[in-house]
Amino acid sequence: MTVCPQILSPPHRVPPLSEILSPVSRRLNRVNRLLRAWPESTSPLIRRMAAGAILRQGKLIRPGILLLITGHFGYRGNHDLPLAAAVEGLHLASLIHDDIIDRSAYRRGEKTAWQRFGSDFSLLLGDFFFIRSVARSLALEEKEIPAMLAEAARLMIEGEIEELAESHNIKISRARYLKIIEKKTASLFQTTCRLAARLGGAGSEETKALEEYGLNLGLTFQVIDDLLDLTGRPSQTGKPAFSDLREGRVTLPLIYALRAAGPAEQRQMKKELERIKTEKTQPVNQKLINFIRSTEALQKTFRQAEVLAARARSAVLRLRPSLHRRSLLQLTDFVLWREQ
Amino acid sequence: MTVCPQILSPPHRVPPLSEILSPVSRRLNRVNRLLRAWPESTSPLIRRMAAGAILRQGKLIRPGILLLITGHFGYRGNHDLPLAAAVEGLHLASLIHDDIIDRSAYRRGEKTAWQRFGSDFSLLLGDFFFIRSVARSLALEEKEIPAMLAEAARLMIEGEIEELAESHNIKISRARYLKIIEKKTASLFQTTCRLAARLGGAGSEETKALEEYGLNLGLTFQVIDDLLDLTGRPSQTGKPAFSDLREGRVTLPLIYALRAAGPAEQRQMKKELERIKTEKTQPVNQKLINFIRSTEALQKTFRQAEVLAARARSAVLRLRPSLHRRSLLQLTDFVLWREQ
Repeated sequence: MTVCPQILSPPHRVPPLSEILSPVSRRLNRVNRLLRAWPESTSPLIRRMAAGAILRQGKLIRPGILLLITGHFGYRGNHDLPLAAAVEGLHLASLIHDDIIDRSAYRRGEKTAWQRFGSDFSLLLGDFFFIRSVARSLALEEKEIPAMLAEAARLMIEGEIEELAESHNIKISRARYLKIIEKKTASLFQTTCRLAARLGGAGSEETKALEEYGLNLGLTFQVIDDLLDLTGRPSQTGKPAFSDLREGRVTLPLIYALRAAGPAEQRQMKKELERIKTEKTQPVNQKLINFIRSTEALQKTFRQAEVLAARARSAVLRLRPSLHRRSLLQLTDFVLWREQ
Repeated sequence: MTVCPQILSPPHRVPPLSEILSPVSRRLNRVNRLLRAWPESTSPLIRRMAAGAILRQGKLIRPGILLLITGHFGYRGNHDLPLAAAVEGLHLASLIHDDIIDRSAYRRGEKTAWQRFGSDFSLLLGDFFFIRSVARSLALEEKEIPAMLAEAARLMIEGEIEELAESHNIKISRARYLKIIEKKTASLFQTTCRLAARLGGAGSEETKALEEYGLNLGLTFQVIDDLLDLTGRPSQTGKPAFSDLREGRVTLPLIYALRAAGPAEQRQMKKELERIKTEKTQPVNQKLINFIRSTEALQKTFRQAEVLAARARSAVLRLRPSLHRRSLLQLTDFVLWREQ
């Protein structure tokens, strides 16, 4: 199923995420415990659902970034763990709601929340995590922190709304696509970096570098996500292939393919996209996949991701060297080359 | 369709809401304008959807209560209007999500948000209002205010989750029902009063009285809501009758009816409730309605609401007399006797 193996073999060894995050792995475990303690005051049902959603959360990339940055600055306070939990909680809230909207049945090989608890419970569970995330950050005695988190949440929600509004719009431009994924995905990465810089007492130059890092790492993350929808093995990505196509999401590979298509091919693609919109259970027409593959759209998409990852890389290189900076650099490779 | 007209004629004139809120009507218009300005920085689509949701919001009871209380204390600051908007925004967010969950097509005679924009957009629109409400309160320079709002939001969401979990549970107790509506509905009324007391510089006795007022007014509000589902005229309530029955909500009238039923009748009721659960489009069996009516459950429910309204009334009487207190008192009658 991997379409273009040449774009999936890195020129050097990319360490696994556990190795990259090893400087903060013990603290990440504590973040996970904090997050799991959130629903403790509530009813057993909410505790059970929340615990289920949290256990399956997976990578903890965002809290990892936050702790790597505070680690880089030698932060010694006690705001980093609750803040890392709040960032992950916000991410979790948005995943839970997105999966309802996208009707995604699987994520990382596990059933999504709405598949397990139904969409009604999951809607409210997402609300719970949204409110809890912001509420938890209120305890940190710094007014700007909850405001920054709430602003990131607003951008995420707006990005989702705008993405939904662009469904099935085959005329969407690359710039518009990038703007939407910036709001939807990159804003939380960027805010994570900004918050960490603030806690770490970063100077304005360092803060700017870290914001640039977060933005471009987040963009890379989403572009690769959209590429994996077309090229990834479901056994590795943990979700069915072509979910975006089915939901009418016109992602970067599709934008490039549409650009390369002649008017007749564009009409055919449009027809096929309309068909799979109404016939959700039918397989995606192999012709459409083959056409996309024939246009070099996948390669172009990967090159775009490479450019974004390089920007993240060069931004973080403006920090002084450290063990933690090394991990932040490795993360740009991990996000670019990941297969899940 | 009004089942028991005797419970729907107040012993004295109850002024219309516009008259009750007249001491703060000009300020309420400003709250509405503030709320409408929230989405101004966002995309035209979100602006359009949000404006649609706000325009149809209706009664503005919660902001009205807030302004009546701050008015009672002669508050002269500028935090009351944005806070009133935040309270209404939270209410709006929860309405938008509830209507998705309850599949309510109409509210106050207008199509609900998900009927107009689809459930995906509405889910995100609800998220938008949740986050905006808390975010807006962050600007008020008082850390406790957003924390109080976030706590109210948490209780509302938890109440919704617990209500959903009790769907079709005909063994639910009256105490459990009251606990759930306290979280789901009364917590926001209570928080509104607490916030207003704080802004107004109320003493601890006055604050306690106002919290009691908010709690009991909110409970009255929800009990009457649940009664109107069975007794109200859709032309007045603006929503179809028996929505709660259809969604499997076991509300106070049903709890009283079940209590009055013998084992055979209980089995029959259970069967009918299961049937309308699976056959959503079928009319509710008139026998079930007739049985509920025959048990005095509606009268008992109204009497419970009367007790709650009286508690709200006696709580607010502990404040010194004022034009605004008069309106707060009238509100207890309005909430009890309303037909919509």
